[in-house]
Amino acid sequence: MGLEKVTSLVCLSETEVRFSEVDSIKVVWHGNYIKYMEDGREAFGKKYGLEYLDVYSHGYVTPIVQAHCEYKKPLRYGERALIETTFVDTPAAKIIFRYRIMNAGTKEVAAVGETVQVFLSAENEELYLSLPPFFEAWKRKVGLAPQPPKGE
Amino acid sequence: MGLEKVTSLVCLSETEVRFSEVDSIKVVWHGNYIKYMEDGREAFGKKYGLEYLDVYSHGYVTPIVQAHCEYKKPLRYGERALIETTFVDTPAAKIIFRYRIMNAGTKEVAAVGETVQVFLSAENEELYLSLPPFFEAWKRKVGLAPQPPKGE
Amino acid sequence: MGLEKVTSLVCLSETEVRFSEVDSIKVVWHGNYIKYMEDGREAFGKKYGLEYLDVYSHGYVTPIVQAHCEYKKPLRYGERALIETTFVDTPAAKIIFRYRIMNAGTKEVAAVGETVQVFLSAENEELYLSLPPFFEAWKRKVGLAPQPPKGE
Amino acid sequence: MGLEKVTSLVCLSETEVRFSEVDSIKVVWHGNYIKYMEDGREAFGKKYGLEYLDVYSHGYVTPIVQAHCEYKKPLRYGERALIETTFVDTPAAKIIFRYRIMNAGTKEVAAVGETVQVFLSAENEELYLSLPPFFEAWKRKVGLAPQPPKGE
Repeated sequence: MGLEKVTSLVCLSETEVRFSEVDSIKVVWHGNYIKYMEDGREAFGKKYGLEYLDVYSHGYVTPIVQAHCEYKKPLRYGERALIETTFVDTPAAKIIFRYRIMNAGTKEVAAVGETVQVFLSAENEELYLSLPPFFEAWKRKVGLAPQPPKGE
Repeated sequence: MGLEKVTSLVCLSETEVRFSEVDSIKVVWHGNYIKYMEDGREAFGKKYGLEYLDVYSHGYVTPIVQAHCEYKKPLRYGERALIETTFVDTPAAKIIFRYRIMNAGTKEVAAVGETVQVFLSAENEELYLSLPPFFEAWKRKVGLAPQPPKGE
Repeated sequence: MGLEKVTSLVCLSETEVRFSEVDSIKVVWHGNYIKYMEDGREAFGKKYGLEYLDVYSHGYVTPIVQAHCEYKKPLRYGERALIETTFVDTPAAKIIFRYRIMNAGTKEVAAVGETVQVFLSAENEELYLSLPPFFEAWKRKVGLAPQPPKGE
Repeated sequence: MGLEKVTSLVCLSETEVRFSEVDSIKVVWHGNYIKYMEDGREAFGKKYGLEYLDVYSHGYVTPIVQAHCEYKKPLRYGERALIETTFVDTPAAKIIFRYRIMNAGTKEVAAVGETVQVFLSAENEELYLSLPPFFEAWKRKVGLAPQPPKGE
C-alpha cells in the first residue's frame, strides 16, 4: 500500500524556564506547564505542517476543550524544559496530544499532560462533528489516515 | 453528636476578565482558567480559614499534583467569571477541589475543573502520606472530619 | 460658562495580589505592575465611560506606545493593590494616564507609572494625528475639553 | 594596561512569539515586552557571566526599580523577537540595560526599552549604595571598570 500506518508522531522541543514563570516556592508555577504544552504543540505543528495559522487559513480554529496535567517533579529557574509532544490518533473530529515535560538536563519527568481540541469554523464558531477535509488530507500526508478502501 | 457532617463546602467568588487574558480569537486563553481556579481556591481559603499562608505557617506547602479543566463556552473580554469552588472530602492526604467557572452575567458554565494537592514539608519538601494534624483540626472545625469515637 | 474645567479625573480601584503574580523573591514580579496599570485603566474607563469596547465601537483602538514604571516598595502575596489612575489632559491625539499603585493596607506607594496611548483606526491601523470626534465629545462630557467659543 | 575599556557589551538573543502572548488585536500584548526584556537580560547574563543565580550566590538580589518601554511596530503571532541587550556602564550602584526588540525576520524595531536595577542584600533586603565587590570584579573582568590606579 505504499505508506505504512505510523504508530505515532512525536516532536521534541525545548524551552528555558523564565524567571517570571517561577513562583514563590521557587518552582515553575503549575499553570505555566499549560504554556509549555502549547510550546510543544506549536513545535509539533511546525515539524509536521499543522500550525495554527495553517489551520486558520483553511477556515478553522481548534480550541482546547480539555486540558489535563499531572505534576511529578518541579522544574526550577535555571533549568530547561524538554517537551515531548505526541499526536494521539483518533477517528473522532478531535486533535489529541499527549505531553511529557522533562528536565532537559536530567531527563527526569516534570509533568505529563493531555489536551483535546475540536474543530470550529473560524467564521461562525460552528462545531464540526466530522473530520474537516484539510485535516484528513494532513493525516494522509503524515501517514496516519486509513488509506481509502481499494477492494479491501 | 453536636456537629453534623457537612456534605460539601462551597465558595463563590468573582473575577473580571482582564484584557491581557484574552487571546487573538477574542476569548479567554485556556491557560488562564488555571488562574481562575486558583482565584477560587484562594477565595475558599479565605472563607473557610485555609489560606496558603495559614498552611505555610504550620510548616506545609500544598503543591498542585493534578489539574484538569474542561472548556464549555468561552468567556470574553468585558465579562466576569463567577467561580464556584467545592471542597471534595477525601480520607487521603490530599486536598481536592472542583470548580465551576460561569459567566457571571448569564450563569452559563464556561468551564469545569478539578485540582489535587498534596502536603509537603515546607522545609525539606518531604511528602506526607497521612493527614497533617493542622488539617485534621481544620476538617473538624468546618464539620468535615469523622467525630472522635464516643467515650473519648 | 456652565461646566468648569476639571483639573483631573481620578479613579481608585483595588486588586488582590495573585499567588501566580509573585516571583521567587516572594514579591510581585515587576512585569505584573503593567497588569495592575491596565486594571486601573479599565476601572477608569468604567467609571468615566471610556472603556475599550466603547472606543472600539467608534472604530478605534488605542494601543499603548509608551509605558513607564518606577518601583518603590514591593507588594507581596496576601496583600491588595490600591490603584490610583489619573487622566492627564493633553491637547495631543494621545491618552495619557498616571498611576500610583499602593499597598491597600498601609497606603505605602508600591509603584508609580505612566502610559501613553494613541488612536488607530480599528480597521486599517492608520494613526490619527488629531483627536477623534468621539474623544472630543467624551472630553466635553467629563468637563475636560475647552468649551466652544462664546456666541455659538 | 592590558585590557582596553570596552565601549559597550551587547548580547543578541531570540524568542518566539507565543500564542498566549498575543492579545485580541492579534499583536503581542504590550506587557509581554517586559518578558522579552527579561529574556534579553538573561541571555546577556549567560553570555557575560552575570546570571541571576551568580548574583544570588554572592548574597545579592538585583530588583528592577525602573522599567521603560516604547512601542514602535507590534510583533505578531508566528514571528520571532530578536532582542539586543546592551549594558549601559555607570559608576552608580545600579545595573542599567537598554533593549532593542526587533522582528527577527524583517529586522524592524518593534520596541525599545530600558531597565534599572539596584543591589539589595539577599538576606535582609538592605540597599547597597556603592558597587558590591563581586560586581566591581565582574566589571573588571569584562573590561568595563576603570583599572586600579598604578602610579596614576
